[in-house]
Amino acid sequence: MSGNIIGERFVAISFGESHGKCVGVIVDGCPAGLPINATDIQSKLDLRKPGQSIITTQRKEEDKVEILSGVFNGNTTGAPICMLIWNKDNDSRPYEQMRNTPRPGHADYPAMMKYGDFNDYRGGGRFSGRITATFVMAGVIAEKLLQQILGIEILAYTVEIGGIRTSNLSIDNIRKLRYSNDVRCPDPSIVEKIKGEIMRAKSEGDSLGGVVECTALNMPIGLGEPVFSALESDLSKALFGIPAVKGVEFGSGFEGVKKRGSENNDIYKVKNNKIITMTNNSGGILGGLSTGMPLLLRIAFKPASSIAKKQQSIDLENMKETEISVPGRHDPCVVPRAPPVVEAIVAIILADHAIKYGLIPPVLKR
Amino acid sequence: MSGNIIGERFVAISFGESHGKCVGVIVDGCPAGLPINATDIQSKLDLRKPGQSIITTQRKEEDKVEILSGVFNGNTTGAPICMLIWNKDNDSRPYEQMRNTPRPGHADYPAMMKYGDFNDYRGGGRFSGRITATFVMAGVIAEKLLQQILGIEILAYTVEIGGIRTSNLSIDNIRKLRYSNDVRCPDPSIVEKIKGEIMRAKSEGDSLGGVVECTALNMPIGLGEPVFSALESDLSKALFGIPAVKGVEFGSGFEGVKKRGSENNDIYKVKNNKIITMTNNSGGILGGLSTGMPLLLRIAFKPASSIAKKQQSIDLENMKETEISVPGRHDPCVVPRAPPVVEAIVAIILADHAIKYGLIPPVLKR
Amino acid sequence: MSGNIIGERFVAISFGESHGKCVGVIVDGCPAGLPINATDIQSKLDLRKPGQSIITTQRKEEDKVEILSGVFNGNTTGAPICMLIWNKDNDSRPYEQMRNTPRPGHADYPAMMKYGDFNDYRGGGRFSGRITATFVMAGVIAEKLLQQILGIEILAYTVEIGGIRTSNLSIDNIRKLRYSNDVRCPDPSIVEKIKGEIMRAKSEGDSLGGVVECTALNMPIGLGEPVFSALESDLSKALFGIPAVKGVEFGSGFEGVKKRGSENNDIYKVKNNKIITMTNNSGGILGGLSTGMPLLLRIAFKPASSIAKKQQSIDLENMKETEISVPGRHDPCVVPRAPPVVEAIVAIILADHAIKYGLIPPVLKR
Amino acid sequence: MSGNIIGERFVAISFGESHGKCVGVIVDGCPAGLPINATDIQSKLDLRKPGQSIITTQRKEEDKVEILSGVFNGNTTGAPICMLIWNKDNDSRPYEQMRNTPRPGHADYPAMMKYGDFNDYRGGGRFSGRITATFVMAGVIAEKLLQQILGIEILAYTVEIGGIRTSNLSIDNIRKLRYSNDVRCPDPSIVEKIKGEIMRAKSEGDSLGGVVECTALNMPIGLGEPVFSALESDLSKALFGIPAVKGVEFGSGFEGVKKRGSENNDIYKVKNNKIITMTNNSGGILGGLSTGMPLLLRIAFKPASSIAKKQQSIDLENMKETEISVPGRHDPCVVPRAPPVVEAIVAIILADHAIKYGLIPPVLKR
Repeated sequence: MSGNIIGERFVAISFGESHGKCVGVIVDGCPAGLPINATDIQSKLDLRKPGQSIITTQRKEEDKVEILSGVFNGNTTGAPICMLIWNKDNDSRPYEQMRNTPRPGHADYPAMMKYGDFNDYRGGGRFSGRITATFVMAGVIAEKLLQQILGIEILAYTVEIGGIRTSNLSIDNIRKLRYSNDVRCPDPSIVEKIKGEIMRAKSEGDSLGGVVECTALNMPIGLGEPVFSALESDLSKALFGIPAVKGVEFGSGFEGVKKRGSENNDIYKVKNNKIITMTNNSGGILGGLSTGMPLLLRIAFKPASSIAKKQQSIDLENMKETEISVPGRHDPCVVPRAPPVVEAIVAIILADHAIKYGLIPPVLKR
Repeated sequence: MSGNIIGERFVAISFGESHGKCVGVIVDGCPAGLPINATDIQSKLDLRKPGQSIITTQRKEEDKVEILSGVFNGNTTGAPICMLIWNKDNDSRPYEQMRNTPRPGHADYPAMMKYGDFNDYRGGGRFSGRITATFVMAGVIAEKLLQQILGIEILAYTVEIGGIRTSNLSIDNIRKLRYSNDVRCPDPSIVEKIKGEIMRAKSEGDSLGGVVECTALNMPIGLGEPVFSALESDLSKALFGIPAVKGVEFGSGFEGVKKRGSENNDIYKVKNNKIITMTNNSGGILGGLSTGMPLLLRIAFKPASSIAKKQQSIDLENMKETEISVPGRHDPCVVPRAPPVVEAIVAIILADHAIKYGLIPPVLKR
Repeated sequence: MSGNIIGERFVAISFGESHGKCVGVIVDGCPAGLPINATDIQSKLDLRKPGQSIITTQRKEEDKVEILSGVFNGNTTGAPICMLIWNKDNDSRPYEQMRNTPRPGHADYPAMMKYGDFNDYRGGGRFSGRITATFVMAGVIAEKLLQQILGIEILAYTVEIGGIRTSNLSIDNIRKLRYSNDVRCPDPSIVEKIKGEIMRAKSEGDSLGGVVECTALNMPIGLGEPVFSALESDLSKALFGIPAVKGVEFGSGFEGVKKRGSENNDIYKVKNNKIITMTNNSGGILGGLSTGMPLLLRIAFKPASSIAKKQQSIDLENMKETEISVPGRHDPCVVPRAPPVVEAIVAIILADHAIKYGLIPPVLKR
Repeated sequence: MSGNIIGERFVAISFGESHGKCVGVIVDGCPAGLPINATDIQSKLDLRKPGQSIITTQRKEEDKVEILSGVFNGNTTGAPICMLIWNKDNDSRPYEQMRNTPRPGHADYPAMMKYGDFNDYRGGGRFSGRITATFVMAGVIAEKLLQQILGIEILAYTVEIGGIRTSNLSIDNIRKLRYSNDVRCPDPSIVEKIKGEIMRAKSEGDSLGGVVECTALNMPIGLGEPVFSALESDLSKALFGIPAVKGVEFGSGFEGVKKRGSENNDIYKVKNNKIITMTNNSGGILGGLSTGMPLLLRIAFKPASSIAKKQQSIDLENMKETEISVPGRHDPCVVPRAPPVVEAIVAIILADHAIKYGLIPPVLKR
């Protein structure tokens, strides 16, 4: 299937470019009977919106969602739901200058080689972080579906930026605090340190990377289809569609490889006549199937590649080395804007699997 | 698409169980005209075969491949290629005892919950590491295709086991040494240390995890289809199909998030009129597209969950806690057997993308 | 994959409802570098537009296409192309009256049963013939691609309406005359007869069915992928997506079954050093593969189900029999508006297969 | 997805060649807990088996099914089910002679052009009617699933051969008589006439075509996913995968186009508090959705292309015209062997849709 499509039964198709008319998404396969309105989607979009604080890009976009199809009398109908936001604050001039000089670390170079000068380079075109707004719109619908039918709650939040990492998280704080500060970190003890670090990088024309963690509570048992549609498989496929993601791990992940089996295995217990594990090194997935424990995954975001600092690059027309300093308005760190995007992507995949597993009917009861 | 299928144009469909009659695979979509014989496949299968050294399971399997279809006069015909190996050395008795007592860290529990007592629990059934033999058979065909048409070379090797990590790798050593020792590590300075560590864990009835790295040389530019069929997306989806994989990262991955953009961006250079980068923090992928630099990824394998050491578990029938000690023949560390599997999986995805990108024709020239 | 998506490499995703805000389509997978503008699409849309003559519905729709994404500087970029037309002339009042009384022969009844009262019943919602406008928009792009790269020419036309069938067709006439008259029939000798028949049915509050034939010239050899992605398979799958289609046949089709093999087999000849057949009973497809002869297929359109004539139906609320007379503006025969739709659908499938077969590169040469 | 795969949730993957080692199929996505044994499959395979009567090919094949995976203790496990039959009675010699002389009406020519001399031409290779045995094996599982969970009964039978058509059918006769005679026709009054016609054609070195009709009883309402996964869409896609099929129609089909809407619309009635229609011109599908009335479709099989009679063809090596008389053992009419194949294909698609529609759970109750 072509690259802009994710999911099989709950399907999202993303379209639009950073500096084109709009960015949008179609959700196909959403069951009929889910109450949806623009406000639901808008609240989540607003959490991702640019220009909200000094640590994000200064591009001002209203990002107002418009629902074009698939919703009738306030409910989904079972037909494809097309949603979009019109682009407004475009300034494509800086991109003209660097058409032949690829930004190091950015998609520019392979995109030029692949699509030639047909590529819409303005604002990064399809490779812009702006397209993650389309994931959010689709994700809200998935989240609502999961929440309403299965009680699943999805929470993503910053756990590390610029080498500063939280070591102090509780589900309560995650729920309450993750969107209460600019860096989207539920550990108040490091929020200001991280902000300082981002501002320092920004002032030096540089950028920072970080890690977003995501958990999903009230998971059913048995979601996932071994072997290649394992829950880890489908989640990672979708998560790597987010620009700047370079790693995905579940449970104890890369740290877990240093443990012994006897330490890393999660021991089963009976609690209130339910089987649980005391630890969650598996991240809630064994054999590609959800175990009923919370889903737990982490995503590595590389430092943003577009920086003001001078860097060496190539003048492609003359095939000689040159320097580039990326003008324009860029996020010094994309991590603070990532949690709503991660929640959306995780929701899309879980909704897809929940439908495939027969947990969500094609038409919801009124 | 159902879970045992990977790829879209070069497609592998895995079947068979650990203690069933056989494990096998169909490759559909392989271009006509690729010379293939059982020996090609056998040599790679032999690198994954159990019972080869004291550090792997003592299950003795000949693992002799049989090609059932799709090859005629020594060449692929364009028709589906079915290959299988017959299981021989099954001992299902230990599994009877633990039918109601899930092994901690293993797929047992969610599989029981999902499939009930229809699940083929013998030897782990479909959740056994044995099914990776089916990936290898399909992968050999993909590797040959990539090698012959595009000159791509895929190399996977152990970089860490039990916390012992190499810091000394060269492409030459990787090529020459990775299969020269039991742990599949191209750094001779740590091979014996790792073996010792594995033997120690084994003697204590425990297991170890580790990291496999994989590189692909002579990559074309532009492989991958943003956004959800990004090269990272499709590679990770397939890699998480390997049992025990809990993390996948590209280039600088989780370490890279600690760097600044100016450090992590790979600076472009012109060398012999070709554009290259001096570092490869991107792992050869930007914007989901291959850059022409070597593909570079790492996979986290958790310590094997089946251990002889006593662990707490649940007697599901009586819903009360009990102890389990996993009898039978298990790998104390699956990492040494993983590199041929990783090479196979990477090859399948690259072949699929190369065909989709028009780099491999549907019929090869004689 | 969800139902509103067709194709695998050249993919069309249809959205929108008859009386919603708009109807639209995304094309994903179109190669970069195809010159496209709104005028190309508009000319074809105009051939399908309602309200053009007395024999079609009197709904007045401008049907003006708007391209939202995927085109930059007049060329496709390789990114998804979203196109839509805004609905204007909606009159949903008649549909309120018949919400509980399904029109015989229409999707009303199963749609109510499937989607309950979440179904957007206004104007038939997703089941309206109006969604075929979305096929046309996608089809124009496919047609242009096929025409420009492979020289393929696709021609669809009416061969039968209300039992009146042409027996006199030539490629020249088909090219010149098919869109020169209201019934889209390239046989001038029956055009007026058909119009008379349609007007008679209309005046009696009734409707007519008919047959559309489609041919594609300059076909390459070998398009199609046996067995389930045979050219007939994928063409018919897409063609049955057109409302009112109840049969699809290739070459001699249902008539051919009465022949003997010696009559129905197309004898090979050499002509100008090219292999051709004198007859084309195969419709240009053997073994699911194109033969290089013209593609030839026919599609059965049932008489439109929405008629003014009184018919028996059920009052679903009270589960008792009642009568219904469908008010509103309906086509007494959908066949005259079908040829551009059929051309579009055939083009989409041929483009998809041509890309899969490596005949169209991912980026076109300038 | 590659061509040998059909279905999305209930998936069949066909492999093997006419004169290779075997023909086989994998079913992936079958729910766990369906009782399956070789005998179930064998009984249906036997209805398709060659060499059963004087009117079919004299190739003698035992066609004994072997189940290789996915069944444990007599039940499906949810894992892929691989089944195959070993080829025995191959005689490839006749095919050597005609390697360069394509049989008119057969896949030979486009297959040679597409796959070159890599094509496995022996016995038609993948293009042989023999691969329909793989459809039957998969279909039996689908049929059992539909029958056991939903009570759906699928019945296919000959309605026309060599121009002789039944006009006298009852469900009772269809059930009882369709497999009681060599031509698989439930109308005893024409069986002998048809047999005579086939024998006459055979004795003249010629072949006949015909029509198979298929009905499915106890259909649920709402199966199908508009617009491109309409029930007609997916059924026709799969049915055209059967060699020699050149047309598919539903309900009144091509005849229905001659009717007026008021005649062709099926009038709703209430009977025993259930909504039914007195006629079934829709073939049980409206708007791509099942209506609850019996599914009804017809398939046109062209006369077999391999005939003993001399026909003109081309010597491809010397590009000059020559004559060919097809030796070997061929069916003078494939229709009598088609009904079990049609039942199988229809079952696969209905099972796929029933799973997608949530009517069949992923694990069956014991």
